[in-house]
Amino acid sequence: MNNNKTVSNMNGLMQHQPLLISTLLTHAERHHGDQEVVSRRVEGDIHRQTYRDLGQRARCLANALATLGVSFGDRVGTLAWNGYRHMELYYAVSGSGAVLHTLNPRLHADQVQWIADHAEDRVLFFDLTFLPLVESIAGKVSTITRFVLMTDRAHMPAVTSIPDLLCYEDLIETHTDDFVWPTFDENSASSLCYTSGTTGNPKGVLYSHRSTLLHTYAAALPDTLNCSARDTILPVVPMFHVNAWGLPYMACMVGAKLVFPGPMLDGESLYELFEAEKVTLSAGVPTVWQGLLAHVEATGKTFSTMRRTIIGGSACPSAMMAAFEDRYDVQVLHVWGMTELSPLGTVCTPKARHLAMDSAQRRVLQAKQGRVVYGVDMKIVGDDGKELPRDGKTSGELMVRGPWIISSYYKSDAGDSLVDGWFPTGDVSTIDAEGFMQITDRSKDVIKSGGEWIGSIDLENIAMAHPAVAMAACIAAHHPKWDERPLLVVTRKLGSELSRDELLGFYEGKIARWWTPDDVVFVDSIPLGATGKMLKNKLREIFQDYRLPTA
Amino acid sequence: MNNNKTVSNMNGLMQHQPLLISTLLTHAERHHGDQEVVSRRVEGDIHRQTYRDLGQRARCLANALATLGVSFGDRVGTLAWNGYRHMELYYAVSGSGAVLHTLNPRLHADQVQWIADHAEDRVLFFDLTFLPLVESIAGKVSTITRFVLMTDRAHMPAVTSIPDLLCYEDLIETHTDDFVWPTFDENSASSLCYTSGTTGNPKGVLYSHRSTLLHTYAAALPDTLNCSARDTILPVVPMFHVNAWGLPYMACMVGAKLVFPGPMLDGESLYELFEAEKVTLSAGVPTVWQGLLAHVEATGKTFSTMRRTIIGGSACPSAMMAAFEDRYDVQVLHVWGMTELSPLGTVCTPKARHLAMDSAQRRVLQAKQGRVVYGVDMKIVGDDGKELPRDGKTSGELMVRGPWIISSYYKSDAGDSLVDGWFPTGDVSTIDAEGFMQITDRSKDVIKSGGEWIGSIDLENIAMAHPAVAMAACIAAHHPKWDERPLLVVTRKLGSELSRDELLGFYEGKIARWWTPDDVVFVDSIPLGATGKMLKNKLREIFQDYRLPTA
Repeated sequence: MNNNKTVSNMNGLMQHQPLLISTLLTHAERHHGDQEVVSRRVEGDIHRQTYRDLGQRARCLANALATLGVSFGDRVGTLAWNGYRHMELYYAVSGSGAVLHTLNPRLHADQVQWIADHAEDRVLFFDLTFLPLVESIAGKVSTITRFVLMTDRAHMPAVTSIPDLLCYEDLIETHTDDFVWPTFDENSASSLCYTSGTTGNPKGVLYSHRSTLLHTYAAALPDTLNCSARDTILPVVPMFHVNAWGLPYMACMVGAKLVFPGPMLDGESLYELFEAEKVTLSAGVPTVWQGLLAHVEATGKTFSTMRRTIIGGSACPSAMMAAFEDRYDVQVLHVWGMTELSPLGTVCTPKARHLAMDSAQRRVLQAKQGRVVYGVDMKIVGDDGKELPRDGKTSGELMVRGPWIISSYYKSDAGDSLVDGWFPTGDVSTIDAEGFMQITDRSKDVIKSGGEWIGSIDLENIAMAHPAVAMAACIAAHHPKWDERPLLVVTRKLGSELSRDELLGFYEGKIARWWTPDDVVFVDSIPLGATGKMLKNKLREIFQDYRLPTA
Repeated sequence: MNNNKTVSNMNGLMQHQPLLISTLLTHAERHHGDQEVVSRRVEGDIHRQTYRDLGQRARCLANALATLGVSFGDRVGTLAWNGYRHMELYYAVSGSGAVLHTLNPRLHADQVQWIADHAEDRVLFFDLTFLPLVESIAGKVSTITRFVLMTDRAHMPAVTSIPDLLCYEDLIETHTDDFVWPTFDENSASSLCYTSGTTGNPKGVLYSHRSTLLHTYAAALPDTLNCSARDTILPVVPMFHVNAWGLPYMACMVGAKLVFPGPMLDGESLYELFEAEKVTLSAGVPTVWQGLLAHVEATGKTFSTMRRTIIGGSACPSAMMAAFEDRYDVQVLHVWGMTELSPLGTVCTPKARHLAMDSAQRRVLQAKQGRVVYGVDMKIVGDDGKELPRDGKTSGELMVRGPWIISSYYKSDAGDSLVDGWFPTGDVSTIDAEGFMQITDRSKDVIKSGGEWIGSIDLENIAMAHPAVAMAACIAAHHPKWDERPLLVVTRKLGSELSRDELLGFYEGKIARWWTPDDVVFVDSIPLGATGKMLKNKLREIFQDYRLPTA
């Protein structure tokens, strides 16, 4: 069949309605109007509102944005924790046709300024916590004309160096909710998030309303995050980090209760909120869950309503999964994603045949990052770009494509970032015959020993399973014969004893002998990036002249 | 804010991928390749294939369609049961850019011919069962140039009046699977289904790839039909009836196992298949479930894997829900939809607060058709078109809108079928404060007594709850004082005794006294339409001169 024949006009006769973020809020307001959004505020107290309140306040805010001179397509920056005002901005900014730019407040002030300038932000909204940060950049940023502190009149600073600082609650109060969400092309930009790249300048990912809505549908499916109107969702993952993995959109789509933890992300504060608000589903990076688990273990507590937690951002240690599932009856959903993927790529949800697995087999399956949801396609390729077999053993660079995956970075000179229509993730992985993907490394972190690849993540996971290890990073060290060999950099748990030989002995029988690290170095701390990931490039710098005992 | 400002070009930078039906099959083939599609064949045996087989055969079929002269946008008719060949046609026809036109074989031959002519079908595929039907229309239809019998060479008739009758399996065998699904505009027509209107000529609803894909995402969500890779789905609802409610698309999206019952829809055959194939989820109209329940009741059997059944098409009697849930531990999902809605509009899934309900309260909630999934918006309006309150009491005409809802009928002179952007469903309903909708009547079936509306469905449900009643229809009969009063037309269960006064007494305390029917007429049978619905317009004709005892 000739696939390029002239296309006659034979369109379906269905209603034309663009996929717009504002329609999620309208849906929540009309059909789940009394559902709650609960926030621990930066001001210290617990705040409660309904989707009806949220919708009304977002419309006031949309009118305020117009008063501030924000036009269609303009970027509006935020430096904020997870909370209802940030949620109102999510909908008011994107809904009115402007672009929500969530800045990462954990970055250095210079980087924040660089990113705000690169994005050409017009207005900046920020939480009380970040007043010193904003004061330090207010005189330097080149495009921001208005600064808005996300608090009420009572909490406004008496003195500040920020010119004409505005008060968020004043803006809401002085504008009416008489606003109709505009209709426009669903391919319009909705939000912008920069990757905190470990090398080079940060790069901006510009989402569209269409990509966001399709991602939201897919992410709420039973085999993805499985969100319903019966869920109470607490996103620990920050709203400045890839839209909190899409949960603020999903919650409106399904009418779930939302609980925002604000700035208090320690184990005790999170646990308190989980119990008080009857949270059923949460999401975050492994480091956050370490704090929570430490708290419940130390206090002997259990989770009375929490049944599922989504773990991603970096590989979840097997020991953490076992703790959640075996000790606390909390199902762990291991996920993999990237800023460039909106972010969800894969979720480790069992297929029918996996339901009969025992817990040991299940743990092996769960160590994988999972399978794609419809909308994402993936493959692994070798150095020649050819697709590699799906045998669960062969590893290659992971390539993805789909309607919520980036085509090019914002204001990038490099143009299209795709290879034959596929986005190269920079991750190295296997895919098994059942479609389950497992990350073995970042392509820049992989250790090339005598022409063969050694995945650093496997080696780290084994070390992390040792009771005396707090954190472990495995990097390539120079070797005269093999080019590179694995070097393990480890921090011990407080008060623990552990020797080099003991730890290396721990690898026996767990992995091919030639994969065993050549040496172990104990350090006081491993450098972490702004999203909690280990900065292995920093470690490689530090150990660039390290002489292996095997050399 | 001015919502009509000039739009600058600020599009997101995400990949452009049209939402096409072929991508569902590609996904199932790549990521769920060994999942099964099991069919009871018209030929009598059980057939098994995988999604990998399905994909391969659909590509052969796409090449065959091209050979048969089928071009982009051409209509391809089917007269077929639920089975794997019908499934292959679903994907081969739509996937290659043609339009799948599923004809209802339960219609009269003259109607089938009229619809095929109106749709301008080019090719007709049909099951062995319908050979006599097709023989009777083959000489009359004006646009069909090729007829294909969906069977193998061994089952082809020795003699037939159909000119140049082709054999389906020959077509598959003589074409290669070397075919790449074409990419085209997602608004292109994908499939066509005519409503079996009770008055006037049938009307065609022309779906698009986009509307189908969005409907599929929404329909698989946890609060809708909740479909996952762990499900085995048996659609009893025919594939010629609004795409079997979207299940053939959902199954590919989530990688569920599919079981097709073919022509055998009696209770015993269905039960056998449910058990043998470990079906978890099924879907159909109430009349089908009556047969299944009668079978399990008579034989004392239970369901070992079936846990959910979707009931729609017409209101599900409360007694049926109670039987499924209380006796067989099968959750009933009451749904409402229409051909014009692809078809899903609402599903009666509980919100968090409903989980604590006892079974009596739950039954009251479940009698409602439920709440909208994101994508559908709904409201009820009065005669003046103004929106009516969502109080669960006020009833008005139900209006809907959304991207999988019709804008106009195929080749309709009437043009746009919408009122201010909303599709008038012709159903009369209430909506409660929590967003749960309940159909009280078809607008043409509502009984107007002294200026007040009486919903016929409530009156029918009460009658159906009486153990001696097999079926009940309530229609308006002429009354000199009140204009119209309810008349109940009833068929008794075989061997049951029931008098007029007994049945009228059964209404006491269950409904406002003035809603009680004025009379009961016992009949041998109630006329049913091609999709199993009671033909109340026929009844109104029969009883148009009926003299009520109260007149």
